[in-house]
Amino acid sequence: MKIILIGASGTLGQAVANELGQRHDIIRVGRSSGDYRVDITDSTSIRKLFEQVGGFDALISTAGKVHFGALSEMGEAEMAVGLKDKLMGQVNLVLIGSQYANDGASFTLTTGILSEQPIVLGSSASLVNGAVEGFVRSAALELPRGQRINAVSPNVLVESMEGYAPFFRGFKPVPAANAALGFARSVEGKQSGQVYKIW
Amino acid sequence: MKIILIGASGTLGQAVANELGQRHDIIRVGRSSGDYRVDITDSTSIRKLFEQVGGFDALISTAGKVHFGALSEMGEAEMAVGLKDKLMGQVNLVLIGSQYANDGASFTLTTGILSEQPIVLGSSASLVNGAVEGFVRSAALELPRGQRINAVSPNVLVESMEGYAPFFRGFKPVPAANAALGFARSVEGKQSGQVYKIW
Ligand SMILES: NC(=O)c1ccc[n+]([C@@H]2O[C@H](COP(=O)([O-])OP(=O)(O)OC[C@H]3O[C@@H](n4cnc5c(N)ncnc54)[C@H](OP(=O)(O)O)[C@@H]3O)[C@@H](O)[C@H]2O)c1
Ligand SMILES: NC(=O)c1ccc[n+]([C@@H]2O[C@H](COP(=O)([O-])OP(=O)(O)OC[C@H]3O[C@@H](n4cnc5c(N)ncnc54)[C@H](OP(=O)(O)O)[C@@H]3O)[C@@H](O)[C@H]2O)c1
Repeated sequence: MKIILIGASGTLGQAVANELGQRHDIIRVGRSSGDYRVDITDSTSIRKLFEQVGGFDALISTAGKVHFGALSEMGEAEMAVGLKDKLMGQVNLVLIGSQYANDGASFTLTTGILSEQPIVLGSSASLVNGAVEGFVRSAALELPRGQRINAVSPNVLVESMEGYAPFFRGFKPVPAANAALGFARSVEGKQSGQVYKIW
Repeated sequence: MKIILIGASGTLGQAVANELGQRHDIIRVGRSSGDYRVDITDSTSIRKLFEQVGGFDALISTAGKVHFGALSEMGEAEMAVGLKDKLMGQVNLVLIGSQYANDGASFTLTTGILSEQPIVLGSSASLVNGAVEGFVRSAALELPRGQRINAVSPNVLVESMEGYAPFFRGFKPVPAANAALGFARSVEGKQSGQVYKIW
C-alpha cells in the first residue's frame, strides 16, 4: 500500500513508520522534515500536499498540537491552538484528502487517553481528543467509495515520559511500538468508525 | 438556588425551566428573549451577562448551534459554526462564568447522543458533542472553590420529531421532561465530570 504518514519524524510517527514500513511504501511528511512538507493548520498547504503526492491507499496522522495550561488561564487564544492544529488540522486532512484518496483508502487519526481520563492542565487536550473521536465515528458513515476512518488513542508513551512523567503520575505508559499496532490494525484491517485504545 | 438558564425559550430549555422552576429561582436568558440577553458566541456579551446577573449557584446551558450537512460539503466555514457556537460558546460560559460563580456552584452543559451514535449529515454535531464531553470531564478537575461541571446528553426529543424524524429513523425519542431530569441531577446532586445520558 501507498501510505502517507503525517508526523513521521515524531515520537509516535517513527514507531508507526517502523511497524508499517516493513510491508508498505511509507511517504514521510512533516512540517519541517520528510519526503514532503505540509502545515496541517493551513488547508492550502494540505491541498498542495495531495496535488503533489497523488492517489494513496492510507493516510495516517500522528501530528497535532494542543496548548497545555491551567483551566483558569485558558482563554479563546489558548483553546484556539488545539482547535486549529490537532482538531481541524486532522479533520481537514480527511475532508480534503478524501477527494484525492483511492477507492477503499483508510484514514487514521491520533487522539489520546485524555478524552476519557483527564489530567490537570489538559482541558484543551481532552476537548480536542473527544472532538476527533466524535468526528471519526460520524465521518465513517459518509466517506465515499469504500473509504474508512478510525482513530488511535494512545496512553502516554514510554518514550515521552522524560518530559511528561510529572503530569501523568500513576499512568502506566505504553511503548510507542504498541501504539503503532493500533495504526496497523486500522490500515490493514477493515473496520471503520473505531477508536483503538492503546491502554 | 439562583440558576442561570441560557436557552430558556428553547425546546429543551423550557422543559428544564419547568423541572427546576418548581424549587429554584430561574433566570431566563436567550439571544432574543428572556430576563437577560446574551450571545454565547461573543465573550464580551458573556462577560456583560455575568456583570449584570452577579453571583449564582448554577448555570445551565441548553443553547448551542451546529451546522448539519453532508460530509462532502463540510469545509472550514461549516465546521466553524459549531466550534464557535455550541462548543466554544458553552466552554466560554464556564471559563468566564467560573470567575463570577458562587463557591460550590455547578455548570451543566448540553451535548447529545450523536457523539456516540452518529447519523448521516451529523459530523459537526458528533465532533462538537464529543468535544464538550471531553472538556467537561477535564474541567471538573480544575474548577475552583468547589465548583462542579457536568453535561447532559439527550437522545432526540419527542418534541423535535416533527422536523427531525427523517434524520433519526429508528431512534426512540425521549420527552424533553425526561432530559430535564438530567439537569436536575447535575444541579441538585453532587457529582462532577459526568455525562448524564438520557437514552
Ligand atoms: N507522546 C505521547 O506520549 C502521546 C500520547 C498520546 C497521544 N499523543 C498524540 O500523538 C501525537 C503525536 O505526538 P508525538 O509525541 O509523537 O509528537 P512529536 O514527537 O512532537 O511529533 C510531532 C510530529 O508532527 C509534525 N507536525 C507538528 N505540527 C505539524 C503541522 N502543523 N503540520 C504538519 N506536521 C506537523 C512534526 O513534524 P516536524 O518535526 O517536521 O515539525 C512531527 O513529525 C499528538 O497528537 C499527541 O497528542 C502523544
Ligand atoms: N431538540 C433535540 O431533539 C435535541 C436532542 C439532543 C440534543 N439537543 C441539544 O440541545 C440544545 C438545545 O436544543 P433545542 O432543540 O432546545 O434548541 P432550540 O429550541 O432551537 O432553542 C435554542 C435556545 O438557545 C438560545 N440560543 C441560540 N443561540 C444562542 C446564542 N448564540 N446565544 C444565546 N442563546 C442562544 C435560543 O434563544 P432565542 O430563542 O432567544 O434566540 C433558544 O432559547 C442544542 O445544543 C441541541 O443540539 C437537542
